[in-house]
Amino acid sequence: MKKILNNPENYVPEMLKGLLAAHPGRLKSAAGDIHCIVRADAPVTGKVGIITGGGSGHLPVFLGYVGRGLLDGCAVGDVFASPTSDQMYETTKAVHGGAGVLHLFGNYGGDVMNFATAADEAAMEDIETETVLVADDVASAPAERASSRRGVAGMIFAFKIAGARAEEMASLAEVKAAAEHALANTRSMGVALSPCTVPQVGRPTFTIGDDEMEIGMGIHGEQGIRRGPLQSADEITDQLLAPIMADLDILNTEVAVMLNSLGATPLEELYIMYAHLRELLQAKNVRVYRPYIGRFATSMEMAGASLTIMRLDDELKRLLDAPASSPFFEQSQYV
Amino acid sequence: MKKILNNPENYVPEMLKGLLAAHPGRLKSAAGDIHCIVRADAPVTGKVGIITGGGSGHLPVFLGYVGRGLLDGCAVGDVFASPTSDQMYETTKAVHGGAGVLHLFGNYGGDVMNFATAADEAAMEDIETETVLVADDVASAPAERASSRRGVAGMIFAFKIAGARAEEMASLAEVKAAAEHALANTRSMGVALSPCTVPQVGRPTFTIGDDEMEIGMGIHGEQGIRRGPLQSADEITDQLLAPIMADLDILNTEVAVMLNSLGATPLEELYIMYAHLRELLQAKNVRVYRPYIGRFATSMEMAGASLTIMRLDDELKRLLDAPASSPFFEQSQYV
Repeated sequence: MKKILNNPENYVPEMLKGLLAAHPGRLKSAAGDIHCIVRADAPVTGKVGIITGGGSGHLPVFLGYVGRGLLDGCAVGDVFASPTSDQMYETTKAVHGGAGVLHLFGNYGGDVMNFATAADEAAMEDIETETVLVADDVASAPAERASSRRGVAGMIFAFKIAGARAEEMASLAEVKAAAEHALANTRSMGVALSPCTVPQVGRPTFTIGDDEMEIGMGIHGEQGIRRGPLQSADEITDQLLAPIMADLDILNTEVAVMLNSLGATPLEELYIMYAHLRELLQAKNVRVYRPYIGRFATSMEMAGASLTIMRLDDELKRLLDAPASSPFFEQSQYV
Repeated sequence: MKKILNNPENYVPEMLKGLLAAHPGRLKSAAGDIHCIVRADAPVTGKVGIITGGGSGHLPVFLGYVGRGLLDGCAVGDVFASPTSDQMYETTKAVHGGAGVLHLFGNYGGDVMNFATAADEAAMEDIETETVLVADDVASAPAERASSRRGVAGMIFAFKIAGARAEEMASLAEVKAAAEHALANTRSMGVALSPCTVPQVGRPTFTIGDDEMEIGMGIHGEQGIRRGPLQSADEITDQLLAPIMADLDILNTEVAVMLNSLGATPLEELYIMYAHLRELLQAKNVRVYRPYIGRFATSMEMAGASLTIMRLDDELKRLLDAPASSPFFEQSQYV
């Protein structure tokens, strides 16, 4: 896969430079480090701050969700690499408006370790923090080890719900509870058709046959649960939904659905999948309250897709419907 | 490139089925033909209707801009193929709220011919129509034959401006004038790095070396102006901006910028391009009033990008800033 870049070493800093040049009214950097991206109006006095962090290469994840009704900040790592604990700490400090800061991020080793150090540093400065890990990928571990699962596109529902709760000026404990409540009701499952190329590495993250797909592969190319011949859109959709429904009882409920392209897969193909998905859900008396169909969590130019389902109750519906706006995500008032 | 589909013959109808299933509150089909997509509230009484039409495979173009403050309808063809004149006529009829209908579409032979027939049919039913062709691609013909240029991503600015003017309840002549005014100030230029595959054909639209790019290639793989070795992001950006500035005097003005991925090229790379683009524009005392960076007009999984610039005056700024909402496009109130 060919890339539009200058120097692979500068892929992320140049991207961040462009980001700040494009959206100066909405985003700024903190502590003089371009890897610490926060809302232009941060810190918001009296509001709980919410930050995330993680490797680059997944736009709009992670920094694309820094905005009103969403996150207050993001510590940005190199492609597929964790940001430093210091960047996480500085981002925490920059969004602290006096009500504490929630660390809400995907369950990856480097991020977990560095956020723990950042939380310790924040505590020494009397900034209260809480941590919620996103672990929504049912492919990455069985239910009995659910806490070891990876975090994928489900994190966006957690950002949305926690962000809306924080805008209501809820307490740190309440914002944490909202994020946990969202994630307790959220599961994801993906399929990969082709790899992507990390600029500094220069070769694909994995190899896969021209006629193959891998169900359950992670967004960095982590091994999935089954590799086999490329199947039809309907068969793929069946295999994304079934493990989610085995893990989360959604019969006779209302849900939010996210059908996400990993990058190269066109929107046309997501809608082909959605046509079948909606029939599968209707057959189980599951009503789609709000669909999100597009590119929400990518792996650069990887081909493939993921399905995320969040089971809804009245509180989650209210928070999901709340206004939200970032340069990468606009919550519509219309459904 | 591998695709998620069931039967190549059904790629478009299944996509449309998914679209209508996903957004029943916002879109509907007309005349019992799933290829005629209109706003759910069409026709809007007393408002000028605006429709477009064209081949599929370019989402969000074309049907993705059917929504509030944008288009009223879209006639949808097969992948890279024109819809029929009858589909254009039925879409015209479905959005006619008594004030006439603007046909606003890209300058491609089949579309031009079929829309002319549709306009004749509409006239026989006493539906007044006007036509505005989008011909913004500076690569496709020199300035002295500007009317023969192809229409690419600049059409989205025309949709936005004309759509906003129609929402103001302007007359058909005024809406047509707004579209023409937008297009007179809009130019685009693209670069392709890799082809895409039309499902019913099953092989790439063109071949290009692993170390090559083609400046000025059209979104269906139409020949560009120069093929050569893959250059840096900065060099590519230079070559997209220069022919636009040679054709449109933007010195000391305010502009809207659209940096558009053709599909597979990640957002990260668009922001790398934007970092350099902003410096180039600043050096010419050009101020970016509003940037649009993302996937607005694609060729399925093609890698590459396009740059569109619209020179602004007070009227265009007002119409650009107006609210707009479709399932694929939300105009933010924030910049």
